[in-house]
Amino acid sequence: MPRLHAFPDSVAFARRLARRAALPVAALRLHRFPDGESLVRVQAPVGPDAYLVRSLFDPNTKLVEVLLAADALRRAGARRVTLLAPYLPYMRQDSVFTPGEPISQRVVARALGDAFDRVLTIEAHLHRLRRLEDILGRASSSLSAAPVIGAWLRRERGEAVVVGPDEESTAAVRAIAAIAGVPWVVGRKIRQGDRRVTIRFPVLPERARAVIVDDIASSGATIATAARALRRGGVQTLDAVVVHAIFAAGALASIRAAGVRRIVSCDTIPHRTNAIAT
Amino acid sequence: MPRLHAFPDSVAFARRLARRAALPVAALRLHRFPDGESLVRVQAPVGPDAYLVRSLFDPNTKLVEVLLAADALRRAGARRVTLLAPYLPYMRQDSVFTPGEPISQRVVARALGDAFDRVLTIEAHLHRLRRLEDILGRASSSLSAAPVIGAWLRRERGEAVVVGPDEESTAAVRAIAAIAGVPWVVGRKIRQGDRRVTIRFPVLPERARAVIVDDIASSGATIATAARALRRGGVQTLDAVVVHAIFAAGALASIRAAGVRRIVSCDTIPHRTNAIAT
Repeated sequence: MPRLHAFPDSVAFARRLARRAALPVAALRLHRFPDGESLVRVQAPVGPDAYLVRSLFDPNTKLVEVLLAADALRRAGARRVTLLAPYLPYMRQDSVFTPGEPISQRVVARALGDAFDRVLTIEAHLHRLRRLEDILGRASSSLSAAPVIGAWLRRERGEAVVVGPDEESTAAVRAIAAIAGVPWVVGRKIRQGDRRVTIRFPVLPERARAVIVDDIASSGATIATAARALRRGGVQTLDAVVVHAIFAAGALASIRAAGVRRIVSCDTIPHRTNAIAT
Repeated sequence: MPRLHAFPDSVAFARRLARRAALPVAALRLHRFPDGESLVRVQAPVGPDAYLVRSLFDPNTKLVEVLLAADALRRAGARRVTLLAPYLPYMRQDSVFTPGEPISQRVVARALGDAFDRVLTIEAHLHRLRRLEDILGRASSSLSAAPVIGAWLRRERGEAVVVGPDEESTAAVRAIAAIAGVPWVVGRKIRQGDRRVTIRFPVLPERARAVIVDDIASSGATIATAARALRRGGVQTLDAVVVHAIFAAGALASIRAAGVRRIVSCDTIPHRTNAIAT
């Protein structure tokens, strides 16, 4: 029976995941030396099929440590090592936006692809219709959070409209709305000058409760901009659901200031807004 | 003419290096996003032969960033990219010391070897007669700090005996002493029980000024142990020279408490003890 080997910061997530699949979980030992080097140690028997669990937010040190852990698992006997990373970083940097930049997404994917036989994640932030399989090999996959978000919304009851901030979110928003049995709309980004972006939405029914859904919230700017646009359109009740709760300093405050009443997130990144188990 | 592209934290080192070779230096731009991701940007024209300069102490974040920078240099036109890392981390973890551990040295070497055509460093801490070429490919090399340390000792004048803490340091100590024109000795480690180690030295001439030399000082325990042994043997005047000044919290104090008067280091890691340019 394959075992989930989890970094200490991801044991809680691994336990939730393992309970449903009835798999054993073991914590890895992680030691950081005074000189900043890390040492990981596998602490449980390793079978031929091993799973490593770690959410890779605040990623740099964690990336090095998961490469070390993959090596440790193989030396301990694993023939096939899968990384379960509920949050996969660097996926947005998928192009040279300014000359002199790397394609960070490729660099990170190459390192992970060399170390792991496959990588499973949740809602990798991939643009341009690219699939994780194209970046990390055909065994890898980005799982949709739509089923759990849709089910959560259905349990919440009450009238709601699922709102996607832009056309890129159409597929996800449509899937969530179908599961929850509610209507949906998406906004259209409109550039105003060089830097300012606003979002335009269709008119929503009066007294509608709008639930803005996005895959990731870092500065919170997208959700705040969407919220302001919806309020200008007459929406009174506004909630927001995000998959990956990065929430940089000030992000929650700026979303609340834009009129969002309730902010919830999936558990791919541990955060006090976590309300939806993936 | 090849250019040295240096991370902001290594520009001073790169300038010293470049002055001797009459090469141009350009600083890379390094940005860290609120979510912990890094973005590097090359800011000067890139020729076919590019050099990246960064000392990799406190290594995890820096390792990810040099992989990103290698990709950026190639996309900007470099066909051959050399990493100049005056301090190369993770070289001591060269074996599975406890079951369940990785061989971190190999993991780091593989990542750097994939990203760079060659890696040049100073005094890589390699045991068992292994050479950096065996780990990082035949173009890579670990340069000796003996010439600059020997020349520094010669300029210092005065009677001195170069002291290596153990037999492993024999080659380095002999080379330094030959350049400085002074005698040398090395100690022999003696295990006392499971954990305690003492060092035994030959009797030194009366009034000798002993200069302990080691490649790296992290906790400072090796130098402090050697210093106590030398003092027990009657040595009155004790100095210490290290190449890589890691010096974890409390290290300098414990070396001073063992009777070392003066502690100097090479400039491979920026530190207030730096006195010898490599």
